[in-house]
Amino acid sequence: MFVGLDLGGTSIKAVALTPDGPAVRRMQAPTPRQGADVVLARMRAVGREVAAGRAVSAVGVAIPGVVDMAAGRARFVPNVPGQWEGLAVAQELATAFGAPCRLLNDVRAATFGEWRFGAGRDCSDFVMIAVGTGIGGGIVSGGHLLLGSTGHAGEVGHVALDPHGPLCGCGAHGCAEALASGPALVAAAARLVAQGLPTALRGACGGDIGRLTPRIVAEVAGAGDAAAAELLAEEASRLGVLAAGLVVVLNPQRVVVGGGVALAGPPLLDGIRATLQDRAGWYLPHAPAAVVPAELGEWAGAMGAAAWAGEAAAGGR
Amino acid sequence: MFVGLDLGGTSIKAVALTPDGPAVRRMQAPTPRQGADVVLARMRAVGREVAAGRAVSAVGVAIPGVVDMAAGRARFVPNVPGQWEGLAVAQELATAFGAPCRLLNDVRAATFGEWRFGAGRDCSDFVMIAVGTGIGGGIVSGGHLLLGSTGHAGEVGHVALDPHGPLCGCGAHGCAEALASGPALVAAAARLVAQGLPTALRGACGGDIGRLTPRIVAEVAGAGDAAAAELLAEEASRLGVLAAGLVVVLNPQRVVVGGGVALAGPPLLDGIRATLQDRAGWYLPHAPAAVVPAELGEWAGAMGAAAWAGEAAAGGR
Repeated sequence: MFVGLDLGGTSIKAVALTPDGPAVRRMQAPTPRQGADVVLARMRAVGREVAAGRAVSAVGVAIPGVVDMAAGRARFVPNVPGQWEGLAVAQELATAFGAPCRLLNDVRAATFGEWRFGAGRDCSDFVMIAVGTGIGGGIVSGGHLLLGSTGHAGEVGHVALDPHGPLCGCGAHGCAEALASGPALVAAAARLVAQGLPTALRGACGGDIGRLTPRIVAEVAGAGDAAAAELLAEEASRLGVLAAGLVVVLNPQRVVVGGGVALAGPPLLDGIRATLQDRAGWYLPHAPAAVVPAELGEWAGAMGAAAWAGEAAAGGR
Repeated sequence: MFVGLDLGGTSIKAVALTPDGPAVRRMQAPTPRQGADVVLARMRAVGREVAAGRAVSAVGVAIPGVVDMAAGRARFVPNVPGQWEGLAVAQELATAFGAPCRLLNDVRAATFGEWRFGAGRDCSDFVMIAVGTGIGGGIVSGGHLLLGSTGHAGEVGHVALDPHGPLCGCGAHGCAEALASGPALVAAAARLVAQGLPTALRGACGGDIGRLTPRIVAEVAGAGDAAAAELLAEEASRLGVLAAGLVVVLNPQRVVVGGGVALAGPPLLDGIRATLQDRAGWYLPHAPAAVVPAELGEWAGAMGAAAWAGEAAAGGR
């Protein structure tokens, strides 16, 4: 039995996998607010519960931030309560479960999960773009999960779409994350509402721009609102520029689009496909790349972490 | 003895390598204009000459365009005279030399050459950006040359730096190649001269903008001309944006800058470093990446092709 734990800012997700298969059990618990030790104790408890008394042969942990994979330590984990810098998460959990434990960045874990069990199945080469509060990613190339020299490959959210564009949280200007994340889409919708432009977005949020979400924008667009549809088209165009750059650099078979914003569905994906065709039409005949939705949703990270750790324990890595 | 042949639009370069070492012999010949058969005959002749009678155990060929690596056939080779589409180049040369022959795109071959013998030595992860008439590239990640699903990974020249920028030869707008290739730099210099702006570029080209080259721009900038220095700074900034995107996606140890434009030297490289720091300052402390010049110059492709084919023949791939 392989246990995967996905540490998030609001919840801890856990799955138990058999060596050759999909999730047999899943559960989640709120992330405690009292500090890293309490969070770690909760992770142990949820992991034990999901294993349900069966022998655990590997534990994988998806961490929302920077990890030192070789040392099994957390580094920079901004969105989880507590002091994580330097914490020996892998050793703590290995001791608790009596099994080897591996850490992996959460989006890389989700990429691995989609590769083994989801939208990247049977691919040797694919790119994941996860669009939520931020934009993260992961890359599988030539049958390997790309980690880069220090485990930080895949930060596709900080590719510049417009070097003179708006400030990003990273300090640079015009990153994909600044222009096409969930908050960027919501901000564009909020402006329309606040400026009094004609749009059903106003009614959909009850006139309170603080209640706008990417889902509301997608729903209002789907119901025929032209202004919301234009926002979604612009969002798709920006993600399409990002996808096109990743495609010509990495030559993937698929671009897997996940995260909450991807729930906007076919209009968003079709828009990404159109921009990809527009920008890389010369390239695609030699190197076709399909744009597809992620399949595992919020369980991708836990499943990927479990499979990652399990394969490592089995000597695959 | 491994023979490497680098097919170019104006010359064919050939090297002979020992299995464990650097080039033992080099030579080049003009690329015939009479068609693919004549070009192939010249490649055979140059390859035989560089082997100098020693036994050849592998032949690698760097092709300036699209190749079908599995079939050993040329596909789209726009800048070499003749009909190359579908030509069984590998089979022809394998028969001629009595040794296995492998084809590889020329910039990927140069990347492999820099990896084995040049600026990427001892790296597990690096990115090559070759800036000349176009912008090409190659990627080594986790100790593998990335090929992508159909052998086309590494086309970094067609990453968008400004999706609303000038038209690129590929049909898209604002690609790195449209904004930062040698011709883009020369065009910016030509505008200054043609518009009569105060710059020593005018004297340096004798008032003939058709004589401007990247080298002239770099020389005039180096001699203290403010306008030329600004062009070079803008060039460096654009390449820096490209480099920063590749760094956050691929987490390389090094960014190797090659091609004719890279001969502008330290001012260009320092400008790239400054922009990389500016855009990826948050990322580099966890994932340092050095910007360095390519080392093998115009011989990288032939050396890389030879090593690539040699290692494949030796069972490394």
